[in-house]
Formats: sequence, C-alpha cells, structure tokens
Amino acid sequence: MAKYQKIPEATIRRLSSYLKCLAELEGKDEKVVSSTQIAEICNVNAAQVRKDFAYFGEFGIRGMGYNVKQLKFNIKEILGINRIWHIAVVGIGNLGSALLVYKDFLKQNYQIVAAFDKDPVTVIGRISERMGKPVEILHVDRLKEVVKARNIEIGIITVPPQEAQKVANLLIDANIKGILNLSPVPVKTPPSVKLRNIFFTSALDSLVYYLSN
Amino acid sequence: MAKYQKIPEATIRRLSSYLKCLAELEGKDEKVVSSTQIAEICNVNAAQVRKDFAYFGEFGIRGMGYNVKQLKFNIKEILGINRIWHIAVVGIGNLGSALLVYKDFLKQNYQIVAAFDKDPVTVIGRISERMGKPVEILHVDRLKEVVKARNIEIGIITVPPQEAQKVANLLIDANIKGILNLSPVPVKTPPSVKLRNIFFTSALDSLVYYLSN
Repeated sequence: MAKYQKIPEATIRRLSSYLKCLAELEGKDEKVVSSTQIAEICNVNAAQVRKDFAYFGEFGIRGMGYNVKQLKFNIKEILGINRIWHIAVVGIGNLGSALLVYKDFLKQNYQIVAAFDKDPVTVIGRISERMGKPVEILHVDRLKEVVKARNIEIGIITVPPQEAQKVANLLIDANIKGILNLSPVPVKTPPSVKLRNIFFTSALDSLVYYLSN
Repeated sequence: MAKYQKIPEATIRRLSSYLKCLAELEGKDEKVVSSTQIAEICNVNAAQVRKDFAYFGEFGIRGMGYNVKQLKFNIKEILGINRIWHIAVVGIGNLGSALLVYKDFLKQNYQIVAAFDKDPVTVIGRISERMGKPVEILHVDRLKEVVKARNIEIGIITVPPQEAQKVANLLIDANIKGILNLSPVPVKTPPSVKLRNIFFTSALDSLVYYLSN
C-alpha cells in the first residue's frame, strides 16, 4: 500500500471521524451521501472532505455523491481496520475500566482480549460489581506470555504516570506492534514500535485555543 | 491575537504536546532546549518543531536553543492557557470519574469546578469509596444554574451515547463556550459553541494506519 505513505496525520484523523459519521448515516438507513453532508455532520468544510478523499483516488461519482457502504469499506481498508485487531489494556483503574466496556471498539474491529493490572484481585472485585466481568483481569507478570498466546498487537496504557514507561517497556519486550498511551506522561518506544500519546489536556488545549483566538 | 488565526489544527495539537515535554524537561531542571531535543522527546522531527514555532515568530536565539521556561510561557499564551478555565464534567461513570482525579488538568490551569450526573446519589457512593470526593456531584437538573454561578466555560461530556446530544443541548442552553465530547458518538453544536469530539477509536485508527502501511 505504498501509495498511501505520504498522507498527513490530520487527514488520517479525519478519515477516522468520517467513518464515525458514516456509521451514523448507515444507522439512519441513508444509502448515498454528499461531501457537503459528511462535512456538516463531521464539523469540517466540504472542500476539506473532498481534498482528504482525493489522496486515495476517486471514491464517488461526480455529482452523484458517495455510496455510504462502499465509502465506509474503502476508508476502513485505507486505515487497515477491515480485520480484527487484538488489544491488551494495562492498568484497570477508572480509565482502563471505561475502555473495557467501550462498545465502539468492537464495532470497529478492536477486540480487547486481555486486561492486566498489578493488583488483579482488588480490581476484579471493583469491576465485577459494576459491569460484570467483560474480560478476565490478569496479573501484569503474565503480560509477555499472554501477548504471545493471544496474538495481541496493540497495548493501551492506562496506568498512573509513574508506571507508564515501565509498562511501555514491558509491552515492547513482549513484541507488541503499537502502543496507545493514555497515561498523562509521554512514553518512549523504539522506532519499530508505533506510538500514540493521547493526553486529555491536549484536547482541551486545542479547544481553548479556538475559544481564546 | 489575530495573527494566530490561520494556524493548522495539527500545529495546535503539537504545541500542546511540546508543552507536555517541556514540563518534563523542567522537572529535570533543564534550562535550555534545542528543537532536536524537543523533537526527540515528542516523537516528531526537528524541522517540524521549528516550522511549528515559526508560525508564532522567533522564540529562540539561533544556535542557542530555547529557554524552557520562556518557551512554556509563550506556548501557553498562544494556546490561551495562561489563565484558569472552569470546567464541568457531565456523566460520572468510569470515564467521568477518571477525569475528576486526572492530576494534569490542574497543572495546566484546567479546574473542574462541577460534576453532574442524573443519579448523583449512586455515583457519590461509588466514587467516595475509592478516591475521596474530589468535587461535589450534583444532579444534572442544576446544570444551567451552576454553570452560571461558577463561571464555567467548558463542558466535558462523558455520558453514554444515547444521552450525549441531550447533554450537549443542556450545555448549549447554559451558554457554555466550548464542549469536549468524549462519548462515542459525535454531537452537534451551533457555530457559537466550539466543539471537539474525541473518540478513542480514532486514536487506534491512526495507530493502526501506521501499523498497516
């Protein structure tokens, strides 16, 4: 898929959000959609939508709009989510627990197949009381073994800041392919392990920038 | 601050992440930093760092690097976070609870001054048991009154998908300035209310794109 190599990250981000909007349209039984409609639902402008799609060749027929199902399929293929990805969540506090029951993951082919904590007994008590036991919580000592056994490719870090790099190292050592770090401090990975640091403060920063300017 | 108007959103996002890295450097008592160092910590390339800073004029002295404290101050000023922002969180499930104790908010001048739920009694029991009572949980019926009384400018939505637009409407009606939507469905706001929809699936999508390509 070398032709997709030079796509700006912001475009990738928007493709993902278009997907979200297309799922909504599909839920309302819409078959065809225009770039203007996508733009409106997604809160961007229509020229941006067309420009983003242009990176990947022609999706629609001029003047006819896009077929919702086909467009969804194409975007999923571009992003690489037309297959199931196995995920591990490490750190089952409030945020980790929230992810374990985040229904949209599965809709999007993200399957949480393992959850780890350094104190699984306490955590299990806490979770099962409130939401059943969505996935067995294992001791973090078993991480490497389970990542291998369950073909886990992505690790999500939801531990406190002082543990974040330690957990990243464990995941790297377990030959994970990608890490999504949701702890409030940046972690580092070697170039072979893809990394996304997501900070809630950054989302607020970008909101506040537009409120201030 | 009209001169900041045309900055790409990706730059704003990176500025926010540079801030995060600068805080780390400051913690390590570093006084001066080069764009190469910032790039390395933040996982981008140095040319990108310099290009991002160039939008806002000269921060550093050629060949001398940037003064960490000054750079932090400048970025905060650009983003508009050199003052305190009052925030309300609506929906105190797992994710909402996680935000109430997210220590980085306060470091960054984001102050959660109110938390709402439609069932505050149950929620309070659940929360106080585990982490003390970081902020009083109020019934969502009081939202408009409290937003006004406490000068709340930003609302964070952490309710289940079927409630998200309803809560967005309540916030809009309460004259909120900006909304950060962390529920898994997009919400809509009028142009006068700034909006960020943040989906955990999007973070994974962008990670998976780079794993697949």
